[in-house]
Amino acid sequence: MTMTPEEFNTYRSRMNERILSEDNKVMKRFFSLDGQTYAEGHLPVKTKEMLGLVSSMVLRCDDCVRYHLEKCHEEGLSTPELMEILSIANLVGGSICIPHTRRAIEYWDLLLTKT
Amino acid sequence: MTMTPEEFNTYRSRMNERILSEDNKVMKRFFSLDGQTYAEGHLPVKTKEMLGLVSSMVLRCDDCVRYHLEKCHEEGLSTPELMEILSIANLVGGSICIPHTRRAIEYWDLLLTKT
Amino acid sequence: MTMTPEEFNTYRSRMNERILSEDNKVMKRFFSLDGQTYAEGHLPVKTKEMLGLVSSMVLRCDDCVRYHLEKCHEEGLSTPELMEILSIANLVGGSICIPHTRRAIEYWDLLLTKT
Amino acid sequence: MTMTPEEFNTYRSRMNERILSEDNKVMKRFFSLDGQTYAEGHLPVKTKEMLGLVSSMVLRCDDCVRYHLEKCHEEGLSTPELMEILSIANLVGGSICIPHTRRAIEYWDLLLTKT
Amino acid sequence: MTMTPEEFNTYRSRMNERILSEDNKVMKRFFSLDGQTYAEGHLPVKTKEMLGLVSSMVLRCDDCVRYHLEKCHEEGLSTPELMEILSIANLVGGSICIPHTRRAIEYWDLLLTKT
Amino acid sequence: MTMTPEEFNTYRSRMNERILSEDNKVMKRFFSLDGQTYAEGHLPVKTKEMLGLVSSMVLRCDDCVRYHLEKCHEEGLSTPELMEILSIANLVGGSICIPHTRRAIEYWDLLLTKT
Repeated sequence: MTMTPEEFNTYRSRMNERILSEDNKVMKRFFSLDGQTYAEGHLPVKTKEMLGLVSSMVLRCDDCVRYHLEKCHEEGLSTPELMEILSIANLVGGSICIPHTRRAIEYWDLLLTKT
Repeated sequence: MTMTPEEFNTYRSRMNERILSEDNKVMKRFFSLDGQTYAEGHLPVKTKEMLGLVSSMVLRCDDCVRYHLEKCHEEGLSTPELMEILSIANLVGGSICIPHTRRAIEYWDLLLTKT
Repeated sequence: MTMTPEEFNTYRSRMNERILSEDNKVMKRFFSLDGQTYAEGHLPVKTKEMLGLVSSMVLRCDDCVRYHLEKCHEEGLSTPELMEILSIANLVGGSICIPHTRRAIEYWDLLLTKT
Repeated sequence: MTMTPEEFNTYRSRMNERILSEDNKVMKRFFSLDGQTYAEGHLPVKTKEMLGLVSSMVLRCDDCVRYHLEKCHEEGLSTPELMEILSIANLVGGSICIPHTRRAIEYWDLLLTKT
Repeated sequence: MTMTPEEFNTYRSRMNERILSEDNKVMKRFFSLDGQTYAEGHLPVKTKEMLGLVSSMVLRCDDCVRYHLEKCHEEGLSTPELMEILSIANLVGGSICIPHTRRAIEYWDLLLTKT
Repeated sequence: MTMTPEEFNTYRSRMNERILSEDNKVMKRFFSLDGQTYAEGHLPVKTKEMLGLVSSMVLRCDDCVRYHLEKCHEEGLSTPELMEILSIANLVGGSICIPHTRRAIEYWDLLLTKT
């Protein structure tokens, strides 16, 4: 029902390249700044990706959730840790986040299988 | 274009079970509390489901809309009553709710056909 | 801490008149249509005002909440009924609605005192 | 991955007719008022459609974005102008708008091909 | 009831300086990029500020609305043009934008008086 | 311009008691569950409060931000760590979060002074 990680990443890369090909400076800098935001700093990358994930959940953006799920997975997030992030998202953002939680877990399971 | 009620309910049940299998207490209690919220009280179930429906519409969550449309249908909501709920949602939430109104009516028609 | 009903209504009336004085047709029709939306129809006024209230709560607009609280009060809504509307708003919209719930109850108490 | 302009317009027209067939006066007037909003006034149609587009982007409604992209295209918006609108949307609305930017550009390219 | 332009600008400048004094690179670049976004490009500054204004209205951020009202005023926006921007915001974003429209017009009138 | 921590906490406690005095079971359980969500689990309290803070920022709820700032302060969050959380919030949620960032820093400085 959800996209597979492969489908998502192929589409994401293709369209990001298309956007950047337009040579709009603000957009290029915004994409670049977006990358820098999650770099190691006073907070470790794993924490920052968790912050990106919970923000994406409460703002209810499935593609952003998928992106940060992959990064969290790479950073070694465990499923019980993920459940605690999702429970905070649901409490703060309400039951309106439940459908996004279903799609998040479905994608997470695909990421776990892939490994 | 939209999911059928059968597809939606199958997916919804399967993923809810998956989420609850993780044994996260906050999530379990949140799901349980979500159910209690719409139980008969000082307000009848039908009114509460209408409140859930209009909230889902203005927050623009298609899956939540589908869920409450089913409950409203079970509670005997008529199509002219539904239209008044949708018109309040559109006025309060703006034209940004129109695409969700289209999908809501499409799902409602599937529910009416099913019966 | 919140506005009193008198302050709110004075400000609301004064600024609505100011807006309408500009003679923008779309705005005038939108204001007029907004009024028609809550008129008696297949659903009674009280139900429509409850729908307006819960929508305003989940979209977190304190002034809209104040407006619909007044209308609900005029329609004879009881405090236990109000609490059920607020509990649906909090479950659907999440803990982010709690501060708005505090201000809603504070305003409601002012409306009750006024009578 | 996105709908084609033909699929979108067919679905949109069919469901709008279905909604209006229900004879709910508020909904009919709202749809009519929505049309009037973008008519030539003190601001030209092109500017109004750009305002509709950026609003749809920051509110993250893909169907509304598609609708205004078509109108902007009819009004002769250029791709570099579109990129500046999208960059404002991303700055104001944040990286949560990036997935919608991808789908917007994909749809825009379909509109350009069609011509 | 609203802040005056002087109060708003004093507070805004003081706190922006405070934020930038922390020397967080992402935040500094984000603030700088935010400025670049509204610079003359394929679209004139006035159009970009109108796009920023309507985005701020539908996202319902009073301080962002105040900021773009000032910029629009500097760019020579007329009151009838402003009303058309606000009418688009209300149609797209719904009646939930009415309280923000009231505060926008109040601030606009203060800007007109100042001149 | 912002509330002091004392004003905020006094108001918050008084109104929470008022809400709970109504004896609405769903609301009571929701408030209780909200507390449990941030308890030590697989993730430490400090991380959970950071997740609550960033969620409150992107959903733009000043009172929720104040609440989590206090908790983060109690958990020993440093100002550079706070700046990284705020920079993620601004990137994900956009410039619309800047006014909330100003009020967050103002409140944070009051918390630091208090100690």
